[in-house]
Amino acid sequence: MSEEFRMVWAEPLTAFCQRVFEKMGVPSQDARTTSEVLVMADLRGIDSHGVARLRRYYTGLKNGVMVPKPEMKVVHESPLTALLDGGAALGQVAGLKGMTMAIEKAMTSGVGFVSVRNSNHYGIAGYYSLLALKHDLIGISLTNSDAYVVATFGREVMLGTNPISVTIPAKEERPFVLDMSTAVATLGKMEVYSRMAKRLPPGWATDEKGRSCDDPARVLANIRSRAGGGILPLGGEGEEFGGHKGYGLDLLVDILSGVLSGSGNTNLLYPKTPEGKPLPSRVGHFFGALRIDLFRPLEEFKRDMDDLIRRLKESAKAEGQERIYIHGEKEFELEEKYRKGGIPLYFKVYEDLKAIAGEVGVHFDL
Amino acid sequence: MSEEFRMVWAEPLTAFCQRVFEKMGVPSQDARTTSEVLVMADLRGIDSHGVARLRRYYTGLKNGVMVPKPEMKVVHESPLTALLDGGAALGQVAGLKGMTMAIEKAMTSGVGFVSVRNSNHYGIAGYYSLLALKHDLIGISLTNSDAYVVATFGREVMLGTNPISVTIPAKEERPFVLDMSTAVATLGKMEVYSRMAKRLPPGWATDEKGRSCDDPARVLANIRSRAGGGILPLGGEGEEFGGHKGYGLDLLVDILSGVLSGSGNTNLLYPKTPEGKPLPSRVGHFFGALRIDLFRPLEEFKRDMDDLIRRLKESAKAEGQERIYIHGEKEFELEEKYRKGGIPLYFKVYEDLKAIAGEVGVHFDL
Repeated sequence: MSEEFRMVWAEPLTAFCQRVFEKMGVPSQDARTTSEVLVMADLRGIDSHGVARLRRYYTGLKNGVMVPKPEMKVVHESPLTALLDGGAALGQVAGLKGMTMAIEKAMTSGVGFVSVRNSNHYGIAGYYSLLALKHDLIGISLTNSDAYVVATFGREVMLGTNPISVTIPAKEERPFVLDMSTAVATLGKMEVYSRMAKRLPPGWATDEKGRSCDDPARVLANIRSRAGGGILPLGGEGEEFGGHKGYGLDLLVDILSGVLSGSGNTNLLYPKTPEGKPLPSRVGHFFGALRIDLFRPLEEFKRDMDDLIRRLKESAKAEGQERIYIHGEKEFELEEKYRKGGIPLYFKVYEDLKAIAGEVGVHFDL
Repeated sequence: MSEEFRMVWAEPLTAFCQRVFEKMGVPSQDARTTSEVLVMADLRGIDSHGVARLRRYYTGLKNGVMVPKPEMKVVHESPLTALLDGGAALGQVAGLKGMTMAIEKAMTSGVGFVSVRNSNHYGIAGYYSLLALKHDLIGISLTNSDAYVVATFGREVMLGTNPISVTIPAKEERPFVLDMSTAVATLGKMEVYSRMAKRLPPGWATDEKGRSCDDPARVLANIRSRAGGGILPLGGEGEEFGGHKGYGLDLLVDILSGVLSGSGNTNLLYPKTPEGKPLPSRVGHFFGALRIDLFRPLEEFKRDMDDLIRRLKESAKAEGQERIYIHGEKEFELEEKYRKGGIPLYFKVYEDLKAIAGEVGVHFDL
């Protein structure tokens, strides 16, 4: 274990990422935001969306898919809604702006929905829905993402792992923080199986012909080359285990993120020139915030949330199980642990950060 | 086949159900609404929620769980939201009122959300979200329901099959109509497996100790007696196939339906006196409607919906598959077929309707 991981602390890790973004031309505050979103993913144990992706952003900024100083503009606005054009901003920058607007509208009008077009990968969906928490609002955050997922009965990757995040406050208990991809498993998990040379569980993925496939390396190669096959939606293959439900949720997120915003959707998020040169990307997001006290007094609601959470957690466990979790709970516990004891970064990730520091020309002190 | 089913037509079936409800003291218009929701389920092939449940409503009205002439009241209202107390109305009556209010608010203010407390089983969730369609709104309909589902790692049934329905219009293509329970399978499906003496697929259900169980009769008996075990959430057992995601969606629906409304939730929907006499029930619903043109011109949105739907449907199929479906499509096709050629009712259901006619004392002409 000790050879595989390197412990790093959240604050210097954030500061390092910020330096990289600044060096790539991103204004200081935006560089800070983006770095915080990445490090929060690591702190919450979602390392597939953490600093391991710094190279992706660095490359995106270098090749013009992401714009360091974007012209973001509000295309259309009402007291309750807005359509924001991200101008190919870093997804975190457009995402923070979009969620902040949704929250402000909810504080003023009761409800706020903001649709964002022409953005990029925004990191973990939960970062944005969690922002609603300090205002005691229900927070919603959805995004579409690069096509890794096949439709039920389909053979081509036509959908992203399109996540759904909803945060709902409680009183003394931790809030409910749903933050889930609508696929049965993430690309990151396939990569872990591939590294360990393990077979995939049934119902996770399909091959070039759209048949069940347990070979992670083949699935990953096929997704990258668009050879056919990909990750299955939540519920797995066909309809027997509800795969059509996962497909429906995935498509719902794509409609609200891609179609409602007029951005790209399904496999059109990352356009290229006829010569194959990447163009600014067209990821879409959807943010929402909702005031609870429009329905009932906030304190009563929070008390009842505590009651529901406690009854669930105290209910009888399945044989061999010791705990029932509420969504977000594991992540809050990891965050506390990692803030105290440091974040375990894969040594490979650590080495890549060091390499980026060299390439970009910033100080590396982790 | 011909012995198992009896063909009936939608209109006389609706009229028959209406007569039963009227005889039970339900006002004519409410009796009509409730009957239409039931028959629409049969027309759309969701026969577990169709007239097969007439006895349940009949019994509910008889024993006071459902109130034929309820005092529904708006507890709290804003231009965007309302909290409606259903007064233990038939769920369809409270549901129609709630969704109608959400639509009216969206037409006036752009967005409408209505939370309903103290209601009953409202039939198919999709009936309500579909009402938004004629106004070109996005429609949302959620409800909690009787506890059949175990939490991930849990042994007791603590959640309902809590459905999510969202309807979104397209232009020439049929609308997207997601209408899915958040469990891996419904109680109705378990009953089908039980009747056919088939083993359940892995990951559908657990036994008294919370272990995987493939015996449908045992699962059904355990759910009814609350002996432990139940249906698993979408994604199945544990976390390997995303069961915690289905559990999270299920819990989200329960929070928005049960906690936001201040109604009952999880296993508290059907309270009883200490002597075991049923009390008026406390089912909660959540309805939403959202104007698309607050984000972008409606016609552009609908055109892009068509484009997305067509690209999905025309994309390559998995080996052995001939079609990729959009959600709602199968149901619209069944509805057309059944309106023309009649609805195939299980003979057992048909016989039960006849028996109810005798018990209640209304004319039976199906």
